[in-house]
Amino acid sequence: MATLRGGIDLGGTKIQTTIVDRKGEVEGEARVPTPTEGAPEDVARAMAAALRKAAAAAGVEPGELEGIGVGSPGDADERTGAVSAARNLPGWEGSFPLGEWLGRELGAPVRVGNDVQVATEAEFRLGAAKPYDSLLGVFWGTGVGGGLVLDRNPWIGRGAAGEIGHVVVERDGAPCTCGRLGCMEAYAGRAAMEIEARRRLEVGEETKIFELAKKKGHDRLKSGDWERALEHGDGLAERLLDRAVGALGTGIASACNILDPEAVVIGGGMGLRFADRYMEGLRAEILEHLFVSDRPPAIEVAELGDLGGAIGATLLFGR
Amino acid sequence: MATLRGGIDLGGTKIQTTIVDRKGEVEGEARVPTPTEGAPEDVARAMAAALRKAAAAAGVEPGELEGIGVGSPGDADERTGAVSAARNLPGWEGSFPLGEWLGRELGAPVRVGNDVQVATEAEFRLGAAKPYDSLLGVFWGTGVGGGLVLDRNPWIGRGAAGEIGHVVVERDGAPCTCGRLGCMEAYAGRAAMEIEARRRLEVGEETKIFELAKKKGHDRLKSGDWERALEHGDGLAERLLDRAVGALGTGIASACNILDPEAVVIGGGMGLRFADRYMEGLRAEILEHLFVSDRPPAIEVAELGDLGGAIGATLLFGR
Repeated sequence: MATLRGGIDLGGTKIQTTIVDRKGEVEGEARVPTPTEGAPEDVARAMAAALRKAAAAAGVEPGELEGIGVGSPGDADERTGAVSAARNLPGWEGSFPLGEWLGRELGAPVRVGNDVQVATEAEFRLGAAKPYDSLLGVFWGTGVGGGLVLDRNPWIGRGAAGEIGHVVVERDGAPCTCGRLGCMEAYAGRAAMEIEARRRLEVGEETKIFELAKKKGHDRLKSGDWERALEHGDGLAERLLDRAVGALGTGIASACNILDPEAVVIGGGMGLRFADRYMEGLRAEILEHLFVSDRPPAIEVAELGDLGGAIGATLLFGR
Repeated sequence: MATLRGGIDLGGTKIQTTIVDRKGEVEGEARVPTPTEGAPEDVARAMAAALRKAAAAAGVEPGELEGIGVGSPGDADERTGAVSAARNLPGWEGSFPLGEWLGRELGAPVRVGNDVQVATEAEFRLGAAKPYDSLLGVFWGTGVGGGLVLDRNPWIGRGAAGEIGHVVVERDGAPCTCGRLGCMEAYAGRAAMEIEARRRLEVGEETKIFELAKKKGHDRLKSGDWERALEHGDGLAERLLDRAVGALGTGIASACNILDPEAVVIGGGMGLRFADRYMEGLRAEILEHLFVSDRPPAIEVAELGDLGGAIGATLLFGR
């Protein structure tokens, strides 16, 4: 039997698990909602259950796996497997020994990494960035996360590299959900875009986006709601998306001016949803601020989709 | 006799050369003005003469050197030794085979690198960043240049990494000398600061800075002119320096959010001149935009001073 690895992508709304062989071929997968109440241990229990489901689909026991990788939000410590300050998860302000807990529960070695970093590595090894040696991954969703591969190796700095969402695009600019001013994410993150849309609605701008979302039963705006608003010719949605793409392009260009990577891969819920519509606009925005503009990096759309994070987590065992 | 290496730092106003042993101890040095007219070959000839002077001071023939490193502005190609688009040097819009020319002229192996990158490596190996494994070098002078050392290795990307001066700090902001808008250098570069000071003078703001510079015989503002203006209580100089420090801090924080390095070293003519006065302010500006603000990088002042670039160039033979 081939050597199999498990991967768990821990998101704010769902937990995606997968079982892959050493080539990254998916042998089984499962998805469950992330608990919205309780403590880190409740989240860990849901993760273990989801991993067992994927293992059952692949016809393997968790304890037979070569290893289980976890892509986690918050501050994930690769050395200890502890995760702290995962503020979009219930009761997770402090530190929880996630790797240790899952290892005991599932009977296999567990490694923990940053969710966006492992998704970047997945695109590098198996996805859109396979032809390149250096890569900036940009995941545009609720926030904007980033990951780095330099000279074929992951670069995580002292553990917190890749925070492209908090590159400043406008000094003293819009308030960011992180509490600072002018971060790229303050313009481009779906959460910040929703806050701005509500603010503009209150001061008299017209928009159908909240009605459209309500019809779908969403009390938070999803990427699809922004797309439906565009399709209804909603001017406010158009303006806020243009503003988001401008901020994304500016921040990505700043990162490229510092790093000069061969490629940039754009993923995430918003990134995948709007790739067709905004990719050319985004390229133009990046070019406008690129210092060596006659030799831009390749700009690609992520290929691994929803499974990228979980597949990337399995790569924590193959670096 | 110990193995000696030569180093040449090619600047817009001066050419600094040095002869060092393998530990980086300086055995001889020389400095000549950079030709302001002619062609790249005239500049190269002045470089060779300056290197011969330093060699004579060290009691060695250029041909006996283990190698001669060059830190060059413009687009310096480490593989070929060619330098192109060095726009602050006379007649150097195109490409010139600087390494080849100097190697033939001086009878020693020549390697060419980016001036700011080699100065960064000098601080890493011999200067203020010796205790660290990763480093962002920021050289604040006429422009703002940057260099990177990651996991003890230089990172130059595809040859153009480290352009921290062109990190955007304000989308659609001030015009930069590079032709783009809102770059950090548009606020912090000494050249851009002078342009802004002249513009403000024309629209009626008061300043003594141009008179003070004239008294010293300077038709371009030097770092010392800015300092003298401050000492005369010049409000415009104060405001433009505060603005520069704000932009520097913002751009450095953005770079740190992407790279999470252990240390940042600040050098360059303005950086060294204003280290005492503005270092605390700069630290505060960086902290304001740092995503992981409870664990900031060490922020140090460059130690090798004017010789850093030339010493760094010699390290092109010891990487």
